[in-house]
Amino acid sequence: MRVTFRTIEWTGDALLLLDQRILPGRETVRRYATARGVADAIRTMVVRGAPAIGVAAAFGLVLAVRSAVRGGRPWREAFRTAAEMLGATRPTAVNLFWAIERMRRGASMLSDDPRESLRALEREAVAVYEEDLAANRAMGAHGAKLLPRSGSVLTHCNAGALATAGYGTALGVIRAAVAAGKRIHVYVDETRPFLQGARLTAWELSKDKIPCTLITDNMAAKLFGDGKIHAAIVGADRIARNGDVANKIGTYGVAVLCRVHKVPFYVAAPRSTIDLGVRSVKEIPIEERNGREVTHFMGRRVAPDGIRVYNPAFDVTPARYVSAIVTEKGVLFPPFSRDIRALFR
Amino acid sequence: MRVTFRTIEWTGDALLLLDQRILPGRETVRRYATARGVADAIRTMVVRGAPAIGVAAAFGLVLAVRSAVRGGRPWREAFRTAAEMLGATRPTAVNLFWAIERMRRGASMLSDDPRESLRALEREAVAVYEEDLAANRAMGAHGAKLLPRSGSVLTHCNAGALATAGYGTALGVIRAAVAAGKRIHVYVDETRPFLQGARLTAWELSKDKIPCTLITDNMAAKLFGDGKIHAAIVGADRIARNGDVANKIGTYGVAVLCRVHKVPFYVAAPRSTIDLGVRSVKEIPIEERNGREVTHFMGRRVAPDGIRVYNPAFDVTPARYVSAIVTEKGVLFPPFSRDIRALFR
Repeated sequence: MRVTFRTIEWTGDALLLLDQRILPGRETVRRYATARGVADAIRTMVVRGAPAIGVAAAFGLVLAVRSAVRGGRPWREAFRTAAEMLGATRPTAVNLFWAIERMRRGASMLSDDPRESLRALEREAVAVYEEDLAANRAMGAHGAKLLPRSGSVLTHCNAGALATAGYGTALGVIRAAVAAGKRIHVYVDETRPFLQGARLTAWELSKDKIPCTLITDNMAAKLFGDGKIHAAIVGADRIARNGDVANKIGTYGVAVLCRVHKVPFYVAAPRSTIDLGVRSVKEIPIEERNGREVTHFMGRRVAPDGIRVYNPAFDVTPARYVSAIVTEKGVLFPPFSRDIRALFR
Repeated sequence: MRVTFRTIEWTGDALLLLDQRILPGRETVRRYATARGVADAIRTMVVRGAPAIGVAAAFGLVLAVRSAVRGGRPWREAFRTAAEMLGATRPTAVNLFWAIERMRRGASMLSDDPRESLRALEREAVAVYEEDLAANRAMGAHGAKLLPRSGSVLTHCNAGALATAGYGTALGVIRAAVAAGKRIHVYVDETRPFLQGARLTAWELSKDKIPCTLITDNMAAKLFGDGKIHAAIVGADRIARNGDVANKIGTYGVAVLCRVHKVPFYVAAPRSTIDLGVRSVKEIPIEERNGREVTHFMGRRVAPDGIRVYNPAFDVTPARYVSAIVTEKGVLFPPFSRDIRALFR
């Protein structure tokens, strides 16, 4: 199944990002030629989605080194500064730190020749991009088998081509199932407050002509109660080594509904989303964003002035609620600790 | 605890309604002098909330009869036409039909003297209004005991002074608990798509200086998971004789979260919300509203053009998820069938 747009594109001297803040109203591609620009794009969510921000950060590092090399400044220092800046943009998705770390490891092995190092770092960033694309395709192939031959699948937030180098994690699985001839209808949670579902997932699925219906987040429970949901599949921002999953706020509620209504709850994420360094999600920092995302809508206030707001961007779903984790290496089943250990052996 | 605004006011020749579509941005009171105007106000949600639309409908009938009497037309026919029009505005909340039926019973006992009948019907509508106020106060007194001495209470939608003649059902219980010295902090679900929580409940509680925090609906699950919610309380649009509860979309999800996290789930509603005519909520019509409520925000499109939307305005919570139902006559406990039978004996 072909995806008809590009989330991220590397031109050789700049990073092009489809501006996800203003979709679906406008399809605007922005050009970033500096690491600072890329960091701002990640922070303000021009680009979002755990794998996509990892890829963007990798190219951000290339841009920093490129600028240093052109200006005759020491590239290793530029790399270090940019890595710190990019790493400070968003705390929860581990793919960001994974991509920075991978680039750092690559950099540590390079000679001091600036142009040669720049070329090597660029090759590494392109590899991060291409491997993510390939991982998504592989997740699709593995995960498609889990979905019903015919039925309705709920997804939350956007774990699609827009959240990755392309194709998508959760939406990649749905795309692959549809491509394999399964008759899937997708219920799309709008995903407040940033509306990634309404704005991005609905747009992506419509573009690809995959049948879908938009609902507000609080309508999912009714659909479960009415027996209308046959599976749920979401992405992940970080998976602990016990299988606990940090993902977009609202994911845990979907997982609880799956459990109570005996519907499978699937997570699709590349291996780079698994953080062996954390035992459970209790150790994962959960980003809190500005309350204005909740009180305002397209710049207009909807809640009373001065109201207190709690705006966590992510929540955590304990491993016991997860039916399976789809990775590019295959599908993991509970108990996840064992399968995750095997995955990294 | 004093409420500092009026949702509904009867002037003797017109009905004044605080326009709830544009709160909290603007506090505009609209004047309705015809039954048709009141029907439009109910349909477009100038006034909403099960008890409030019942009260508004009662006065709508008075306005219809008033206009007929003034014009020298037969008042019984005007009453019948208006009752039909008002009854067709919104299908789920039973209080609407209860109020119309009560007025109809009152009308059937009247003489044909037009002015005398008008006065009697006006007295009846005022009684509906005043009894609702009194019922809310009584619910507050009964329900306050259920809430923790100190803790956080989640509420969904608006079951406050704005949803009733005044004081509120669920928020009435919270008001009474606060008045009794309990230290209650309220988490307010924003309640998509109409944002009754963000726009109305947050406004109402702020006005009354009751500590509250606004969240999007999908954040409630995280708060439950983190052990931050000690009770949930909501209103109801119709309660079946087995205790099943129809209420604002999203209520069922809250009830499921309460069950899974072992937190009590309370419903506060006057006896007029209980429909002995239905055995379970399967028999209750669930209103579906225009998809534009989901795809647009203050007139601006947020979802892609042509996207399919499902927009049920209510959902159903099976009685087994309800810890207690607070009525003006006292608190009902499971099994509700028995307590409900006793309530109407």
